[in-house]
Amino acid sequence: MIAKGIAASPGIAIGRVWRMESEAEAANLPASIEPSAVGSETARLMQAIAEAAAEVASLRDRLIAKGQEHEAEIFDGHLMLLEDEELLDRARGAIASELKSAEAAIAAARDEIAAMLESLDDEYLRERAADIRDICGRINARLTGRSDMPPAGSGDPVIIVAPDLTPSHTAQLDPSAVAGFVTLQGGRTSHSAIIARANGIPAIVGMGDALDDLQAGEVVILDGSSGELHIAPSESVIAEYAARRVAEQAKREGLQALMGLESVSLDGVRVELVANIGSPADAVAAKERGAEGVGLYRTEFLYMGRDTLPSEDEQYDAYVSVARTFGPIAPIVIRTMDIGGDKELPLLELPKEDNPFLGFRAIRISLDRPELFKTQLRAILRASAYGNLKIMFPMIATLAEWRAAKALVDVCKDELRAEGAVFNESIQCGIMIEIPAAALLADRFAKEVDFFSIGTNDLTQYTCAADRMNQKLAALNDPLQPAVLHLIERVIRAARAEGKWTGMCGEMAGQPHAVPLLLGLGLHEFSMSANAVLPARGLVRGMDQASMAALAAEALELETPDAIRALVEARVPAVRQA
Amino acid sequence: MIAKGIAASPGIAIGRVWRMESEAEAANLPASIEPSAVGSETARLMQAIAEAAAEVASLRDRLIAKGQEHEAEIFDGHLMLLEDEELLDRARGAIASELKSAEAAIAAARDEIAAMLESLDDEYLRERAADIRDICGRINARLTGRSDMPPAGSGDPVIIVAPDLTPSHTAQLDPSAVAGFVTLQGGRTSHSAIIARANGIPAIVGMGDALDDLQAGEVVILDGSSGELHIAPSESVIAEYAARRVAEQAKREGLQALMGLESVSLDGVRVELVANIGSPADAVAAKERGAEGVGLYRTEFLYMGRDTLPSEDEQYDAYVSVARTFGPIAPIVIRTMDIGGDKELPLLELPKEDNPFLGFRAIRISLDRPELFKTQLRAILRASAYGNLKIMFPMIATLAEWRAAKALVDVCKDELRAEGAVFNESIQCGIMIEIPAAALLADRFAKEVDFFSIGTNDLTQYTCAADRMNQKLAALNDPLQPAVLHLIERVIRAARAEGKWTGMCGEMAGQPHAVPLLLGLGLHEFSMSANAVLPARGLVRGMDQASMAALAAEALELETPDAIRALVEARVPAVRQA
Repeated sequence: MIAKGIAASPGIAIGRVWRMESEAEAANLPASIEPSAVGSETARLMQAIAEAAAEVASLRDRLIAKGQEHEAEIFDGHLMLLEDEELLDRARGAIASELKSAEAAIAAARDEIAAMLESLDDEYLRERAADIRDICGRINARLTGRSDMPPAGSGDPVIIVAPDLTPSHTAQLDPSAVAGFVTLQGGRTSHSAIIARANGIPAIVGMGDALDDLQAGEVVILDGSSGELHIAPSESVIAEYAARRVAEQAKREGLQALMGLESVSLDGVRVELVANIGSPADAVAAKERGAEGVGLYRTEFLYMGRDTLPSEDEQYDAYVSVARTFGPIAPIVIRTMDIGGDKELPLLELPKEDNPFLGFRAIRISLDRPELFKTQLRAILRASAYGNLKIMFPMIATLAEWRAAKALVDVCKDELRAEGAVFNESIQCGIMIEIPAAALLADRFAKEVDFFSIGTNDLTQYTCAADRMNQKLAALNDPLQPAVLHLIERVIRAARAEGKWTGMCGEMAGQPHAVPLLLGLGLHEFSMSANAVLPARGLVRGMDQASMAALAAEALELETPDAIRALVEARVPAVRQA
Repeated sequence: MIAKGIAASPGIAIGRVWRMESEAEAANLPASIEPSAVGSETARLMQAIAEAAAEVASLRDRLIAKGQEHEAEIFDGHLMLLEDEELLDRARGAIASELKSAEAAIAAARDEIAAMLESLDDEYLRERAADIRDICGRINARLTGRSDMPPAGSGDPVIIVAPDLTPSHTAQLDPSAVAGFVTLQGGRTSHSAIIARANGIPAIVGMGDALDDLQAGEVVILDGSSGELHIAPSESVIAEYAARRVAEQAKREGLQALMGLESVSLDGVRVELVANIGSPADAVAAKERGAEGVGLYRTEFLYMGRDTLPSEDEQYDAYVSVARTFGPIAPIVIRTMDIGGDKELPLLELPKEDNPFLGFRAIRISLDRPELFKTQLRAILRASAYGNLKIMFPMIATLAEWRAAKALVDVCKDELRAEGAVFNESIQCGIMIEIPAAALLADRFAKEVDFFSIGTNDLTQYTCAADRMNQKLAALNDPLQPAVLHLIERVIRAARAEGKWTGMCGEMAGQPHAVPLLLGLGLHEFSMSANAVLPARGLVRGMDQASMAALAAEALELETPDAIRALVEARVPAVRQA
């Protein structure tokens, strides 16, 4: 029997079920205390909280040491909640005035605060309820001395089946003891799923009620790529998945062998395989996964989720940090902020729009608020003393916009020169090609810019007039739509005619079926999620650029994305495995 | 002094102020009656209602006779309200049980029903409150014998200044007595403004509190194009506006002289100047204003504002009606329904979208609901026996969509043939070019379609990624953006290479600065609002197509819409007056 959930973290795990029951601490615990015990019970509580805080801090530090700074931030949040007086006050009050045990007191405080948070309109605050439950569970575990984790080193790794896993649980999973996990609740973007992916632990979430009959100790197969859990699998199915697990492992090791190698085709054409990042922590992770630099630094994340705009120095620190990660030579393309569209920034008090993807966003805001824009440009320029930084403007539609943005860079250079600041005088400035108008005028832009970077996600949605978040329009939202491929060809050709380079930072750049075509069209820089870099390098090193140019010319004559994909598969069978 | 309101209906009026006060009937009327008078008072009320209904019906018939069927529908609604039992019951009840006078009873019923309607969420129903006030005012006028209109034939036409004008008032305005009107309330799309434009009465609405000191009998100048009201104008200003009024009159007469003439350039190139319409009534008005046919019949209005989908026969009747208006030869391009985007249709229960302009709309819905689509296609095919109908599909992005739509036309033809129905076997089928993908692949589409019609409003918003309803992005939303002009050139060229014709039904087709360029690029059919037809004909008849081709080639080299407009003005000075 196969149960289906949400594929949360890829990979295959085979093992025995280890059921994690929910806390149910109330059943075994004295719920109340004698008046004389108030002092000692409060001390027990404070001790457990201190121990929980130490655990969380150590967990956070371990994540940072692994380069998972983004994940570590989740536990920074937990530490703040542990220091929050409300939780403490409520729990202490329950001991002193209601004579509750420390366990019962922390449970009561947890329920009150979580219920209050869950009643709020603000989605961010509502999600904090899960964090409150997480840390209160941790405090409870310290109070009771209970461990709800499978013991390490006691036999084959198990597959955890739990109602839900807190981020704390997930981050503490020991791969020698846990082969994978399945939760009944949760979604693909829950914190647990994010941490599982970062640690390479196969996982399925949101399995619902399908597992009520599953017994502890049963052997199951978990396929984290398909979201399938095989219950009571036959020997032959187990053998099949064991073989697949070995093959995946071999593939991972094969990719690892590509670390440090050049991204060069069989006929000697070298390209750059770089990463899309959103933070200095992402840069560290990207470098570890073989990225040769950064093709898209999404700086809007510097502005989001905070109460004030980031200062020039804060931004400078972030850009220098990325530069230091990659050293002075590797290219680092910094896109100026792309607020708007699906990325809201309440701080700027922008009006609600009927069609935000066609709205007042990105460079349109930057040019409207030159002081905001100049703060960012000055920070990038100053950081350019530490690395090969390049400036890229998003959502350029007209020559006038590009010229106005470039002029502000020159103003900032003048200011910095007058201040005696050090920066790269010949820093490259380029534009995103993500609006059809810019692609159509690429020959004119190419005379003025230093580079193009094609943003295929937006370019496709505008060229086909299909919201890329709208599931019903997925077939139109395909960068292999012939019209989009024609625009891409036109842009690369226009750049080459002026001796400029073209990159691509949309999802297409890392798609196995697209890589041969893009190599054939003469793309120079491929920017993608860090995980796609090594597979793409494997592909590039197995292809001949001249043959791919012929392939691309053929593809441009076809009528549908499917026909193009079939052609690529026929000529470059490796794309099917990549 | 100049007061500024909302320009509601163009034209210049000069005259003395005639202030229309609000009803204030309660002040002069007996509010209550003796018990013995209930019977006679009720009879008075019924008599006044019957007279009001007769008035409304005659008003409606006069509008229909003038071809203003759309405006006439407003009064159909009034008749329904007059027959509504709620109004009657409440008023009769107030006479019988509260011993109110008929005047006071109808006022009370009006206030109750209007307040109830105004408290509703539904905007449509809220607007019905104005209709209730309108008909109750009419009943009151019949009861009191009062007339609130300036008397006709008693001297120079006056300029009415009123708190607001009901549609009833507006439709009854006699141009020999009323030169124009100004209202303190209302907006450009209020019913009064619509009726004023249809009757050519200059008007300003939404003037606010600016006119409190204005005295009856003062001379004012009303400029309905700018929304400016000149109060206490000097003799020289009066002379200036009188001259302008004469010039406008002469221009109108000059345009009238173009009625029935061919739309042909100096060097003998003939083009089609046709109208965009939304209803059979629009077709009548368009023909009266010189349109040579219909370039865009927006059939979605058949589906909107109703509880059920229009049947095949209902649609057939509408299409036949338009065909009969224009006769068997004139081209009538029927666009299949373009629901979605900014045109909602609650009936279809479509999900709310984040970016409706990039959403599930038009042909995307039609192909998803073939039975809905086939009903429309069958109606068009059957109506093609009565006129030169052509079928046009909106929002085509891919060849696959076009082929699927065309295949459904063939299915409908097969069905009708089997049923023995008469239709035009060789009816033309074409596509809107309003998505960049379709424009980019125009050479492939041109081999299969019968014609293109370029929808510049959408094409511009997608090409420049700028919501055409977003005021902040107006500069990007300009069809003279060089990228858009390049796409237009490409589309027309692709069609001509295959011997097909290209039309345009976006706003650009009627813009004086665009007409010379489009003639130069080889556009065959210009579809526009009916009022723009005669000015465009005047322009075309004054231009040489070969020179305009050279002009267009030059324009394609320019970098901004302003530069292109300046070039056109320099070469074709007439565009400034058109």
